[in-house]
Amino acid sequence: MTLPKGFLFSACTAGIKASGNPDLALAIAPDGASAAALFTRNQVVAAPLIVDREHLRLSRGRIHALVVNAGNANCATGKEGIRAGRTVCAEVADALRVRPRQVFPSSTGIIGVPLPVEKITAAVPALVASATDQPEALTAFATAIMTTDTRMKIAGEEILHKNHFVHLVGVAKGAGMIHPNMATMLVYLFTDVIATPRELQQCLKRAADESFNSVSIDGDTSTNDTVLLLASGKSGIALRAVRPPFERALQAVCCSLARQIVTDGEGVKHVVRLRIEGARNSEQARQIVRTIATSALVKTAWAGSDPNWGRILAAIGRSGVKITPERINIYLGEQLLCRNGGAAQFSQDEARRYMSQPTYDIRITLGLGKARLDFLTCDLTTDYVHINADYST
Amino acid sequence: MTLPKGFLFSACTAGIKASGNPDLALAIAPDGASAAALFTRNQVVAAPLIVDREHLRLSRGRIHALVVNAGNANCATGKEGIRAGRTVCAEVADALRVRPRQVFPSSTGIIGVPLPVEKITAAVPALVASATDQPEALTAFATAIMTTDTRMKIAGEEILHKNHFVHLVGVAKGAGMIHPNMATMLVYLFTDVIATPRELQQCLKRAADESFNSVSIDGDTSTNDTVLLLASGKSGIALRAVRPPFERALQAVCCSLARQIVTDGEGVKHVVRLRIEGARNSEQARQIVRTIATSALVKTAWAGSDPNWGRILAAIGRSGVKITPERINIYLGEQLLCRNGGAAQFSQDEARRYMSQPTYDIRITLGLGKARLDFLTCDLTTDYVHINADYST
Repeated sequence: MTLPKGFLFSACTAGIKASGNPDLALAIAPDGASAAALFTRNQVVAAPLIVDREHLRLSRGRIHALVVNAGNANCATGKEGIRAGRTVCAEVADALRVRPRQVFPSSTGIIGVPLPVEKITAAVPALVASATDQPEALTAFATAIMTTDTRMKIAGEEILHKNHFVHLVGVAKGAGMIHPNMATMLVYLFTDVIATPRELQQCLKRAADESFNSVSIDGDTSTNDTVLLLASGKSGIALRAVRPPFERALQAVCCSLARQIVTDGEGVKHVVRLRIEGARNSEQARQIVRTIATSALVKTAWAGSDPNWGRILAAIGRSGVKITPERINIYLGEQLLCRNGGAAQFSQDEARRYMSQPTYDIRITLGLGKARLDFLTCDLTTDYVHINADYST
Repeated sequence: MTLPKGFLFSACTAGIKASGNPDLALAIAPDGASAAALFTRNQVVAAPLIVDREHLRLSRGRIHALVVNAGNANCATGKEGIRAGRTVCAEVADALRVRPRQVFPSSTGIIGVPLPVEKITAAVPALVASATDQPEALTAFATAIMTTDTRMKIAGEEILHKNHFVHLVGVAKGAGMIHPNMATMLVYLFTDVIATPRELQQCLKRAADESFNSVSIDGDTSTNDTVLLLASGKSGIALRAVRPPFERALQAVCCSLARQIVTDGEGVKHVVRLRIEGARNSEQARQIVRTIATSALVKTAWAGSDPNWGRILAAIGRSGVKITPERINIYLGEQLLCRNGGAAQFSQDEARRYMSQPTYDIRITLGLGKARLDFLTCDLTTDYVHINADYST
């Protein structure tokens, strides 16, 4: 994978995670980068997000560095938490000889515990000094931002334009608390296309709706969710020259990261691709798919490879969308489980075999209209409960 | 416990449950009873509920018998299912020499499997013949309607009026799928007060809102939920003579049954009494309390006796109600965990000890208004996942 030009990466162990694993990551755009960002819609918002919004406004969307710590969310930490976020930015800005408003901070981890500022600021000089443009530096970055993730998440695309390339790479952390509105995860996208912050924002919004806002693990939205897109311009190619292929590439990267996040969800054994067809509009399709994807009864049936379509039908019935049960069909792969709201003839054995696969499809036709929606979700296993009952994350 | 006059009960094994446990229950009001009922708000509605509504309308709320089967929900069974429900009613009506419209059917169990009508009709004659007014007959009734319940649920109250008693008893089945709107369970209440169906309906609505609509186990609402109140009039005392004490007694019985249902929820290890204070109105309080009570992250923290108030705060933040995080306090019993949206000083050890109790209190003050709401819910354990992953219920 070739990294986009104009970025350096590094990571280190600052001692925030009790495990002693790497927990601090830095990305530098030495000549600056245009920035666009999306944040959680949760009203309880972590301190770094407040600082991020301020810095994007004050810098008019020109960012020189991104600093991410894992192990502490710096959330529900009051004014102290905002001060802590600013102190980290000032330290990074100082080392890079830029202004604090040109630094974008992120945090992920436990809520309600003060950010260990000294540990972070002590690590900054070495972190800055070790930053490189090598792929290993990006994988170190992707590893340091993990919390309960079991593997790092990276995706990349290239756009060819008149014998030159625009590069795009993305890294993400996910695991628990993944639910749309918005991404409920940390995602950082880097490209060397030439673009204004406003152009980037349009592209990012569209790509996120079709990827991060169409996945769900447990229905909980986090207080720290952030998707950031940085464009260094170092490819020499303007976005307007490659807009359609760039947008396709951006969506491909976002969908790959979203898929990696669900697949690595806490305790996930089965990833389910849900498709809703025949809805009146996409809003109603989304409301129905979310009710299914967050139903404990549906998700535990998936954990047991149980083709219990009655639970799916019952979830649709309580979604709040006006439906006609007699028009609903439910397909498991090619098998019809439920025809016109009632039981279809199908082989239990075959259905269970199909549901023992790590990834499979469930398709629901509502018979109400023409809207369609794809959604990625997963089962609810005893491992999910163990992970979340036994650890303060 | 003295049973209300004017009712006979019986139960038997019709062979619907694979376990061979009792699965058919009958209550008879030989001289008829006034009836009031509440049903699920799920749009996918089981066949017996369609028959119930029809029979209540046609009989003008005068019922002579209630017949309940467990092991099969008779839901998503199409017109065949409605015919099956009517056949069962006709058989019971025949044996009692009343009209089919005076019989109220109920079913609970697996969705989407045809009701084994012959097994039920074959059992009806013996079931009618064995009905008695003895307390053991009521406990046999309460046992036969169980599915994944681990114990039967009965509650009773008496109202003294001029040296005479009005009697009230209730039985319920619950376990999974318990979530408000409406009761998402089967509840049958029997009294010997003299009342019209309209009077009973008013009393029942009020009592259900404060009991069954204020509990949640897993957030899923069922397709078969029914609460039925029958009044034989055999006490000789009119409702209008005892209305306030009768309403208090009805609410006490409903609250006791609701508590028994949550305590016996699938895999439940901890029952949590949630209190929301300082909401703008009770609707907003309900929206917030439901978001907390259905959060997988919050409920798994409770399973692990983890005083993770950050997850509760994050759930409040995504509830959709406009809040001011800086005004929120969260109390665990007498301990303050979160003050003004941030961490309070508290002892982790003491908090964990408190949360190891089978039942405890969490109180949240929002600082927005004067509305208050009490809600009963529970943790999400690995046992819940086992029960729902491994069995087709």
